[in-house]
Amino acid sequence: MTTNDVAERVFNFSAGPAVMPLSVLQQVQRDLLSLPGCGASIMEISHRSKQFDAIHLDAQQRLRALLSIPDNYKILFLQGGSRLQFSMVPMNLLRGTGLTADYILTGSWGSNALKEAVKEGQTRKLWDGKATNYDRLPAEGELQVNPGAAYVHITSNETIEGVQFVTEPDTGDVPLVCDSSSDFLCRPVPVSRYGMIYACAQKNAGPSGLTVVIIREDLLERSRDELPGYLNYRVHAENDSMWNTPCTIGIYVFGLITRWLQEEIGGLAKMKQLNEEKAKLLYEVLDASPGFYQGHARPDCRSLMNVTFRLPNPDLEKAFLSEASKRRLDGLKGHRSVGGIRASIYNAMPMEGVTGLRDFMVEFRDRNAGK
Amino acid sequence: MTTNDVAERVFNFSAGPAVMPLSVLQQVQRDLLSLPGCGASIMEISHRSKQFDAIHLDAQQRLRALLSIPDNYKILFLQGGSRLQFSMVPMNLLRGTGLTADYILTGSWGSNALKEAVKEGQTRKLWDGKATNYDRLPAEGELQVNPGAAYVHITSNETIEGVQFVTEPDTGDVPLVCDSSSDFLCRPVPVSRYGMIYACAQKNAGPSGLTVVIIREDLLERSRDELPGYLNYRVHAENDSMWNTPCTIGIYVFGLITRWLQEEIGGLAKMKQLNEEKAKLLYEVLDASPGFYQGHARPDCRSLMNVTFRLPNPDLEKAFLSEASKRRLDGLKGHRSVGGIRASIYNAMPMEGVTGLRDFMVEFRDRNAGK
Repeated sequence: MTTNDVAERVFNFSAGPAVMPLSVLQQVQRDLLSLPGCGASIMEISHRSKQFDAIHLDAQQRLRALLSIPDNYKILFLQGGSRLQFSMVPMNLLRGTGLTADYILTGSWGSNALKEAVKEGQTRKLWDGKATNYDRLPAEGELQVNPGAAYVHITSNETIEGVQFVTEPDTGDVPLVCDSSSDFLCRPVPVSRYGMIYACAQKNAGPSGLTVVIIREDLLERSRDELPGYLNYRVHAENDSMWNTPCTIGIYVFGLITRWLQEEIGGLAKMKQLNEEKAKLLYEVLDASPGFYQGHARPDCRSLMNVTFRLPNPDLEKAFLSEASKRRLDGLKGHRSVGGIRASIYNAMPMEGVTGLRDFMVEFRDRNAGK
Repeated sequence: MTTNDVAERVFNFSAGPAVMPLSVLQQVQRDLLSLPGCGASIMEISHRSKQFDAIHLDAQQRLRALLSIPDNYKILFLQGGSRLQFSMVPMNLLRGTGLTADYILTGSWGSNALKEAVKEGQTRKLWDGKATNYDRLPAEGELQVNPGAAYVHITSNETIEGVQFVTEPDTGDVPLVCDSSSDFLCRPVPVSRYGMIYACAQKNAGPSGLTVVIIREDLLERSRDELPGYLNYRVHAENDSMWNTPCTIGIYVFGLITRWLQEEIGGLAKMKQLNEEKAKLLYEVLDASPGFYQGHARPDCRSLMNVTFRLPNPDLEKAFLSEASKRRLDGLKGHRSVGGIRASIYNAMPMEGVTGLRDFMVEFRDRNAGK
């Protein structure tokens, strides 16, 4: 590693794969040819070696500590991203139950999850925010949970729309299943209120190729033997994620990130506070720029992770992106399905990146407002 | 990177994840904080960025060149390993056809593939080498291919037993589907004789977490819309492997390995020659040590990748592994299901590793034979 590499780095506001902690990248780099005491790269060692066993166990224990995961929940490290979970959730938890799965749609990813679920069994839109273009959460009294549902599915943070649940909806005894791909580990979460939480790693938790699943043990009983082996949660749980070769470098980097959260950040409560401070800097600019920066999400459900907004016209958006890039503020283009601007400020985005963007936004607005 | 890291490295005979070319690891290490001109790590950049587009295209083109893949074949980069392919192959190519899929079993992995296929449709064991504990290939005249079969499945190299096909069985017009996980890119292959070739990356082609699929376009028509999105080859082909976020670091490293094969090795014909030279060194010791080193596979189907053998008793095997490890010859323990010794000498195992093992085997034999 040279100082130059660090100096070259931009502020990366990409929605995922996304920015990682510099100290984590530096450790990956330092040990890439030979893990200490191992004589081989993390990409070369067997997933059944004692060295990898230790890495795997450490990652699990740190995650369990960070989220205070109760003992009756299993941690699985899988592949295939959230997209495969969109199918695995209903294949395991709905098929054969004779029940209906309820989906709460607060954005594009929840809708994609439902599209896969309908192939696997009976589903219902418990709530759909489409009428206002996914800018809000269900209001009090709007959710009529079916107490006999197989599960209720939510997407805790919608990256495209920038809408985030503030707290869990109350689903009573019905298992709450949460796609937490884009806000995993951004704050403490009461795991015991969930039946299952899943997340692809490439936003807050590692490189793409790794998917983390936290599942309550009693739900594993729903997985039937007829399921394809790789798609069966119970098979993975019984084999501690080693039924097949997992994404070993993903688990390794995930472990380093959980250590960074514990030892450098100081835990998830502190992480949440930092995320709130960062998000506030940008939302304050939106609020102070009516008619120029138009935020998408309503203020009471604004995402801590993805700040989405539009400028008065596409030309200004283009100029905004181009000038930002020259200031080393990269990856700000909104999702291709909705356009506009999206600043993804995940855990690892440093405060300097956010203040740099904030300053640019103010300056750009002052220079272009009214044009 | 320091010289120490290189000096620390052992010779890693692990069956997978497995040894990688040192020059590839060095490049990954060098650019880990910032890809040249990019300002971010390969683990941080968007899979839809122009930088990643270039990496993805380069990897595809190099693979196409190395294997002379005809234009009517698609290259897909997926996740989930061979285990997920064991299910995806019959889900896509068998379900709904009303046909039977034929499996040729030359070892443990082929048998595992069949276990998943029976869940998806009608299957048949076209040939099973179990009677002689998977030490041989089908002899001439033993294969009665059903001309109406959905496909014929083979495992070109069985890592556990160390048995490798020398050439493709003739399946006429029936698509030949090949799990080439453990001998992918070890030699030239006439791709047009296959309907589909798949391989997890973690032996010859990259880190675990990446799976490469090469599929003839007409077979994509068999994939039905009802399939879960992630499990549908047609969906991945139509989206050039970007339907969801692929394992980006896997594709990147895969690209570096294909470049190494082209530019440092000189192509697959040369790679085959080197692999034959390496394997010969070890098999010669087996042949010269009757009663001491007992090879598993019959000589006419010995794997170029995995040299499997037993010693006269478990105590000697234990001593062999322990002494080898002291000489920095690591990962030689046979698969937990069969025991014994397995020397995996994939593409990236340097000649010095093999001569080191050969010398140790001779010395160990001379010291222990007759005890």
